[in-house]
Amino acid sequence: MKISVLTIFPEMFRGFEEEPVIRRAILKGAVQIEYIDVRPFAGGSFRHIDDSTFGGGAGMVLRCAPVLKALETVRESGSFTAALTPAGEKYDQLMARELAQKEHLILLCGHYEGFDQRILSRADREISIGDYILTGGELAARVVMDSIIRLLEGSLRAESTAEESFENGLLEYPQYTRPADYCGEKVPEVLLSGDHEKVRKWRLKQSLALTLKRRPDLLEKRILTEEERELLSELIEEQQMISQTEQEQQILSETEKEEKPL
Amino acid sequence: MKISVLTIFPEMFRGFEEEPVIRRAILKGAVQIEYIDVRPFAGGSFRHIDDSTFGGGAGMVLRCAPVLKALETVRESGSFTAALTPAGEKYDQLMARELAQKEHLILLCGHYEGFDQRILSRADREISIGDYILTGGELAARVVMDSIIRLLEGSLRAESTAEESFENGLLEYPQYTRPADYCGEKVPEVLLSGDHEKVRKWRLKQSLALTLKRRPDLLEKRILTEEERELLSELIEEQQMISQTEQEQQILSETEKEEKPL
Repeated sequence: MKISVLTIFPEMFRGFEEEPVIRRAILKGAVQIEYIDVRPFAGGSFRHIDDSTFGGGAGMVLRCAPVLKALETVRESGSFTAALTPAGEKYDQLMARELAQKEHLILLCGHYEGFDQRILSRADREISIGDYILTGGELAARVVMDSIIRLLEGSLRAESTAEESFENGLLEYPQYTRPADYCGEKVPEVLLSGDHEKVRKWRLKQSLALTLKRRPDLLEKRILTEEERELLSELIEEQQMISQTEQEQQILSETEKEEKPL
Repeated sequence: MKISVLTIFPEMFRGFEEEPVIRRAILKGAVQIEYIDVRPFAGGSFRHIDDSTFGGGAGMVLRCAPVLKALETVRESGSFTAALTPAGEKYDQLMARELAQKEHLILLCGHYEGFDQRILSRADREISIGDYILTGGELAARVVMDSIIRLLEGSLRAESTAEESFENGLLEYPQYTRPADYCGEKVPEVLLSGDHEKVRKWRLKQSLALTLKRRPDLLEKRILTEEERELLSELIEEQQMISQTEQEQQILSETEKEEKPL
């Protein structure tokens, strides 16, 4: 695939291609990236890249002419244009897989207070990488490119994308490597058992536990298998037992306090 | 504030400090950033930064010793350590504001299949910037640093952060700048009216409309003012009228089809 990045800060993409996975994808020809500096399309002066906003308000807005002129030079009939903006659709792994199918992806990076709306109305999609504000769309474009490129053939070994967070709708289970004992903290025994079925089940349960704790919204969206439903009931039961024990201990310690002379 | 980044790819941070807002924050002394290369802490050989995972599976896991040794060299009693991992808590503007209060923030960047769990158990927080997979935590660390640094005093003018997406729980309204007519596409008249109250109300309604369309989840979380509730009812009514008209037109065109001879 080809990716064209339209930006007023091409220097913010320095180092991007040094990441080994990205470098491999480029060397294998899986992706070709070009950075188009929008500034020269603004005419002679620096000031004309942006202007104050109609209706008042702080900050500057990127002007139509330079961005759309730059866009015209790279856009072809099969191109897909995505603008990076905090008000866009929320980016996720599913969208990454979808964009990875495009032959030519154009990324528009905003800066300052954002784009003139008439630029956005010419994009196929507006994308937000998360509910936070960045100084510009350049970082968001890096995030989108990175997540897409690693999915392209020739970038990663296939098996290593299969079991990751989000790919199966759950957060990933804890990982451990040597030594089995680090400063007294040991690797869970089941992982050293060599029993593949036990390991698989432990990992699934850990994934479910972590997702339940940190991202219950992901569980709501997901259709659980029978095994997962059973493990989840086990987890909820265990948690209730823990909180019951905690309550009992609290009552016990309060009783102790009462028994102690003041 | 001081930010220490622990990484095995310090070169992936090249260009980060060139962004004008970041550069200004550094020059004004609002932030000091150091990058610590974890590799030298692994001993003489490249191979020892990571190792295969206990229990089997594809990919390599970052070993405890190099990361935790590097951490020891920078961590002080007031430090706050955050690890960037896809299974972390979801990063948002509120968390950005919280982290911007820290005196010393340490960011741990994972790579390959992630961290040995015993590294994570020594972090104060695990953070995920979104529901997608990146080649490593370096890009996530850039995102976190960028969103924090722009909030620090001396980085941005205060008024320019106040009306942005997420800061008031709504997506930002459309922005326009000169020319008022670009290739026939005109700026909405209200923005040229000079009537501040009308502009304010139009923008609020646009924000609500965009949030309703793209991110209804944000509206669910938010306590609406009376004015916002009224505008939202207006919007929903308008949409129902549109879809009614569309239905009528569809019926009309179907009737026309039936009337045409086959």
